[in-house]
Amino acid sequence: MRVRLRGQPRDIRTVRFDARRNEVILIDQRLLPHQLAFHRTSDFRHTARAIRDMVVRGAGAIGATAAFGLAQGIRASRAKTLAGLRKDALKVCAALAQARPTAVDPVNAMNSMLAELESADSPIHFTELALTLAEAFADEDVHHCLELGRHGAQLVKNGHRILTHCNAGALAFVDVGSATAPIYEAHRRGRRFVVFCDETRPRCQGASLTAWELGQHGVEHAVIADNAAGYLMQRGQIDCVIVGSDRVVARTGDAANKIGTYTKAVLAHRHGIPFYVAIPLSTLDWQLENGAQIPIEERDPEEVLSAWGWNRRTGRTQVRIAAPGSRALNPGFDVTPGALITGFITPRGIIAPQALWTNRQRLGCPRAI
Amino acid sequence: MRVRLRGQPRDIRTVRFDARRNEVILIDQRLLPHQLAFHRTSDFRHTARAIRDMVVRGAGAIGATAAFGLAQGIRASRAKTLAGLRKDALKVCAALAQARPTAVDPVNAMNSMLAELESADSPIHFTELALTLAEAFADEDVHHCLELGRHGAQLVKNGHRILTHCNAGALAFVDVGSATAPIYEAHRRGRRFVVFCDETRPRCQGASLTAWELGQHGVEHAVIADNAAGYLMQRGQIDCVIVGSDRVVARTGDAANKIGTYTKAVLAHRHGIPFYVAIPLSTLDWQLENGAQIPIEERDPEEVLSAWGWNRRTGRTQVRIAAPGSRALNPGFDVTPGALITGFITPRGIIAPQALWTNRQRLGCPRAI
Repeated sequence: MRVRLRGQPRDIRTVRFDARRNEVILIDQRLLPHQLAFHRTSDFRHTARAIRDMVVRGAGAIGATAAFGLAQGIRASRAKTLAGLRKDALKVCAALAQARPTAVDPVNAMNSMLAELESADSPIHFTELALTLAEAFADEDVHHCLELGRHGAQLVKNGHRILTHCNAGALAFVDVGSATAPIYEAHRRGRRFVVFCDETRPRCQGASLTAWELGQHGVEHAVIADNAAGYLMQRGQIDCVIVGSDRVVARTGDAANKIGTYTKAVLAHRHGIPFYVAIPLSTLDWQLENGAQIPIEERDPEEVLSAWGWNRRTGRTQVRIAAPGSRALNPGFDVTPGALITGFITPRGIIAPQALWTNRQRLGCPRAI
Repeated sequence: MRVRLRGQPRDIRTVRFDARRNEVILIDQRLLPHQLAFHRTSDFRHTARAIRDMVVRGAGAIGATAAFGLAQGIRASRAKTLAGLRKDALKVCAALAQARPTAVDPVNAMNSMLAELESADSPIHFTELALTLAEAFADEDVHHCLELGRHGAQLVKNGHRILTHCNAGALAFVDVGSATAPIYEAHRRGRRFVVFCDETRPRCQGASLTAWELGQHGVEHAVIADNAAGYLMQRGQIDCVIVGSDRVVARTGDAANKIGTYTKAVLAHRHGIPFYVAIPLSTLDWQLENGAQIPIEERDPEEVLSAWGWNRRTGRTQVRIAAPGSRALNPGFDVTPGALITGFITPRGIIAPQALWTNRQRLGCPRAI
């Protein structure tokens, strides 16, 4: 991701690893957009805590953080035998998996590393291979996002006004992002367009993370209240919607994403505006029958009753908006039915919802299904 | 409005007048929901400032504030002749009208008072009549809301889950409110139901004002992010939507209201959920041809880039949410086409959008049209 550090532009990943010091280096997303700071974790327990405390968030980003955390834990192990290292690796995995129990990416990343580590034939090989695998996982995350961006960039035309929701950006992955990948690629190709960022209450990832990212890359953008997208569509001021997803049911194309995504899809459908969901292949769920089976996390009501932001005098500050005694409902996600989705932007091309299943081999469906 | 003052329940209007001290008394809406305080204005310039500074907001409430402000100014005039009083009255009107230049209610209220004041035959009669007319204006506002509530209460059934947007409550009128009138009446009749309050970014009138009002009346309610209504509708958890309006085009039933209302109407339409707009007759516009002619106010982007709330340590506090340098669009209102509206709840009954014009005499259309 392009960032300005002390005024100088630099390309930095959201999640990195310092092999010499055995530290994971994360962009501290709790401080954005008001401060760009890096959070270094010196052992796997600190890495787990960084995941739990939301220093890092987003499927791809926490997957890579867990992968590096596993390598970090293995490299710090005092075990002298392969069996001892394997035992320690399982302990490290358990700690990292518990940090965000509902997320699937950390577990998938670590399980695939453990499977590959079976081939190690000496303790030193085991330790070295762990880091190689974690680095490969992170590189692959970036590679998939870039591929996705190359396919999606054709949808972003000169003069377009694109709506996005929440943050499916470089900050949610190791780099590049999913919904932002076509945007960054079209920008690189010199196209001129503007991105409307839904602020995305209650946590405001659109206003605080997506708008910041786009600003760092020099992409023209404007923040809008979640309430304003319908008005802009009504006036013909949105040409295309691109969002990310947390889980896509491959059989139906139903896509779970941040609360409010479904509303934008209904509005886009009414106004004949194309609605795209950008996803790496790891987001495809080959098991579920339909979107109604996706469990929806009910989050802390305090997120709705309050807002978090920056005050010059008090720094990062929570303010209570609602009346004392008022309660709130806070569903974290909703499910957009495949029928409202124009296409999925994937690393293997743009695919219609009803074509996900027929293209399952190309899209990496496990053979067992 | 029912409020708890030092633990005791009391009925207090949003806008009142203290004739002995010639003061307008307003519930200070800038401090709600965290503090219930009363703002007294000692002359008409202070009253104009209170309108400008949003101590009071909402069509009916600022109409009545202007009416009392005009009476206040006339009563403080040193003019000894009818001509002198009339001249001073026009000055007072100008100051009060300028306080919120886009609002129509203060001007309408004061113009109708000025017309009636033509009948005054002495300076003392002029002065006394001014207060009588202002009191009558405020009483009529309450009366209309109560009538509206009696008609609308039939729509609120036991077990219902009602969605409302922004604040079209007692705080937006002299008392009772428009969208809240059927709710208060159904509650008074002993029906049990729950109200979901959209928080209504960017100014959060739903979370801060509507939720507070409903709490004071003991009406069961929950605040939701504007993003969550679609999810609740999708799961069959909303039975009915009731909102207010700032202006309804009588020829088409197109209704302007707080930004985000249109989105809720589109969602309700998709899910077959009845969508009602509650209005006093003064909200009907008999001139315009359609909703596209309603001018939409573009408000300060800072409202979207920041949030305002209460912090225990710092009191009422603004926090910046968006990145420094990000810009925002902030349309204040949107227009819901009549085709998405099930009916208008009015003091004269519940009327379908296409029936507003055919019922124009019953609904108080001026004869000149």
